[in-house]
Amino acid sequence: MELPNQAPAASLVFQTMLAHGPLSRAEIGRRTGLSSGAVTKATSPLLDDGWIAELGRRGGEPVAGRPATLVAVRPERASFLGVKITEDELFGVLTDLTARPLTTRRAALDSRDVGSVVSAIARLVKRLVPAQGPEIHSLGVTLSGDVDRCTGAVHHSPFLNWHGVELAHLVERATGVRTVIENDVRALTAAEQWFGAGAGISSFVLVTIGAGIGCGISLDGRVVSGAHGVSGEIGHLPVGAVDRICTCGNAGCVEAVASTQAIVEQARQVTGDTALTMEDAVQFGHDGHEGVRAVFARAGHAIGLAIASVANLVGPERIIISGEGVASYDLFEEQTRQTFVRQAFGAAADCELIVRPLPFEEWARGGAAVAAQTLVAPDRTRRATT
Amino acid sequence: MELPNQAPAASLVFQTMLAHGPLSRAEIGRRTGLSSGAVTKATSPLLDDGWIAELGRRGGEPVAGRPATLVAVRPERASFLGVKITEDELFGVLTDLTARPLTTRRAALDSRDVGSVVSAIARLVKRLVPAQGPEIHSLGVTLSGDVDRCTGAVHHSPFLNWHGVELAHLVERATGVRTVIENDVRALTAAEQWFGAGAGISSFVLVTIGAGIGCGISLDGRVVSGAHGVSGEIGHLPVGAVDRICTCGNAGCVEAVASTQAIVEQARQVTGDTALTMEDAVQFGHDGHEGVRAVFARAGHAIGLAIASVANLVGPERIIISGEGVASYDLFEEQTRQTFVRQAFGAAADCELIVRPLPFEEWARGGAAVAAQTLVAPDRTRRATT
Repeated sequence: MELPNQAPAASLVFQTMLAHGPLSRAEIGRRTGLSSGAVTKATSPLLDDGWIAELGRRGGEPVAGRPATLVAVRPERASFLGVKITEDELFGVLTDLTARPLTTRRAALDSRDVGSVVSAIARLVKRLVPAQGPEIHSLGVTLSGDVDRCTGAVHHSPFLNWHGVELAHLVERATGVRTVIENDVRALTAAEQWFGAGAGISSFVLVTIGAGIGCGISLDGRVVSGAHGVSGEIGHLPVGAVDRICTCGNAGCVEAVASTQAIVEQARQVTGDTALTMEDAVQFGHDGHEGVRAVFARAGHAIGLAIASVANLVGPERIIISGEGVASYDLFEEQTRQTFVRQAFGAAADCELIVRPLPFEEWARGGAAVAAQTLVAPDRTRRATT
Repeated sequence: MELPNQAPAASLVFQTMLAHGPLSRAEIGRRTGLSSGAVTKATSPLLDDGWIAELGRRGGEPVAGRPATLVAVRPERASFLGVKITEDELFGVLTDLTARPLTTRRAALDSRDVGSVVSAIARLVKRLVPAQGPEIHSLGVTLSGDVDRCTGAVHHSPFLNWHGVELAHLVERATGVRTVIENDVRALTAAEQWFGAGAGISSFVLVTIGAGIGCGISLDGRVVSGAHGVSGEIGHLPVGAVDRICTCGNAGCVEAVASTQAIVEQARQVTGDTALTMEDAVQFGHDGHEGVRAVFARAGHAIGLAIASVANLVGPERIIISGEGVASYDLFEEQTRQTFVRQAFGAAADCELIVRPLPFEEWARGGAAVAAQTLVAPDRTRRATT
């Protein structure tokens, strides 16, 4: 299943309709800069093949001359699957063509072994796909690490301890569904760009705080992917103190002081409680324990320096802070904002900081968004698929 | 003087011809994804108005069916001016439509007062413009600092001590030439993207070392400009030691240990010579003075951390190191590369590092490239001009 016309102009027309909802052909022409002939050439096969439909005239609006017929995408024309792999669970979603979730499911992972995870994904996909309904176009699987969307390989995923796993191929074989894989933060960024807090703005950065510290950068409607597959590794900016060594082996990384594990380790040191959990640390913080509050403040300082670094380099309109760590973000926030404002250079400090909790179901939706891109914007997903 | 057809498709066709040289209309269609009708619609007014010319058939190439006529941009159709403002000198260039330099001139600055600099620019422009020749389309003026290309205002330029200067307007009035202004590093990055070490690659970062440490980021053929006018401020990434305070007031900035001034100050400390210059420091370094070599190594370490930060965030294909500081780059290089490889995350270390000296005349050419963009890609330069 593909769009009937793969030319860039046709893809642009379809993307414009997806982004803006029902439009007249004249409006499509204005927004894309295409001639009315080119718009008609792009829309006709989409109409014939059921991807878009004519809705009739815009209600009540007076139109000079010929009545303007509105055309819109038919959301039910195709479905997409998204799966997010976490350390101990899979989150799955089935969406329509506009990435609206139709069904969500989750499944525990009893092993991080490649074969077990792939089988678990296949079982989850079976539970997500309806017995009857529109054809599934593709599946997007997302996970943290150095994930190469173009080749479909996971070069390295520390939390799963995977190296050089041909994940797209394995999942495709196990599910029978065309599969694309992507770094989980970049996928969530794509979803935010399309229908979240990044919609309609020229540039934004999504920073996720939790087990790792990651970020996705969206500039001019594109998520920065990195020429070598690496981008958004804000957790490994060397802005921290050098007394703690990061999992990557370097000193000074943001993650070495601000990841969940780093906070727990430091909180154990200051409390002397070697069995303390993150929940305990948060409780100590809320109870006013000075040492634990200082651990959170230190994490907030490192995050503030890191987001100021991103702002100084790419100058986004907005920075969205999310991830499971935002549940305790009140313990970081003041220090993060204060450090950000101090280190941001000049007008870079005008960048808006917002906090936005995004549950793992939203991350799975990121996978579905990436899958939808293989249909809608195939030039951005160069991998040759079956 | 404008292109006869301002539609995005026409602009795309013209840019494609500029970037790739003579092409047949069929090749233009393939590269732009436009139909042959759309290509003809775009090229006809360009031909009629003298912006492009037909060159005849491609020599010797066997062509099936109708002979393919090549069309190409006429470089002499328009001229552009570029001026780079440094601390004590102006560098100017006159270029053709393909940014090829026709004349270069320089002029000493006896004052950094706004009025004096504007007058000096007007005098330099008079010396650059030939008595006879093609019409000058526009002038691009570049300088370091927080420069807002869209509004034409210099928000803040520390080395000139300018705040809120409506520079584009003032220069336009003094010269009678339509003027665009831009941050100097971003302008040089635009020039590198068009006809330098960034041509033909998907993404690169230009890092300039010298009085300041700056960078320009080019992704997917666009120089990142920052939603609030700030971008590429690599000199203010907080990766350094906190024992030195930056001119921006913060501790730990790259510039605080690696700018020319910072190196001179630290070399004065280790040698005890309070009148030591940068040339002296370089001489001491080459003579094997351990203390001075450590100063350069420390600067190299900070630069290595900074470029690793950029690579971790945006993952460019290539990083180009330039600026007046590359004259003594042998004293930084080993430490810079070593630190870069260690701090770059995973495949981000595959990014190619190249050193490329770019004299100030090339920086002036950056101004001309930015001016040419106002003609060729007007959607990227939103400022309403006279």
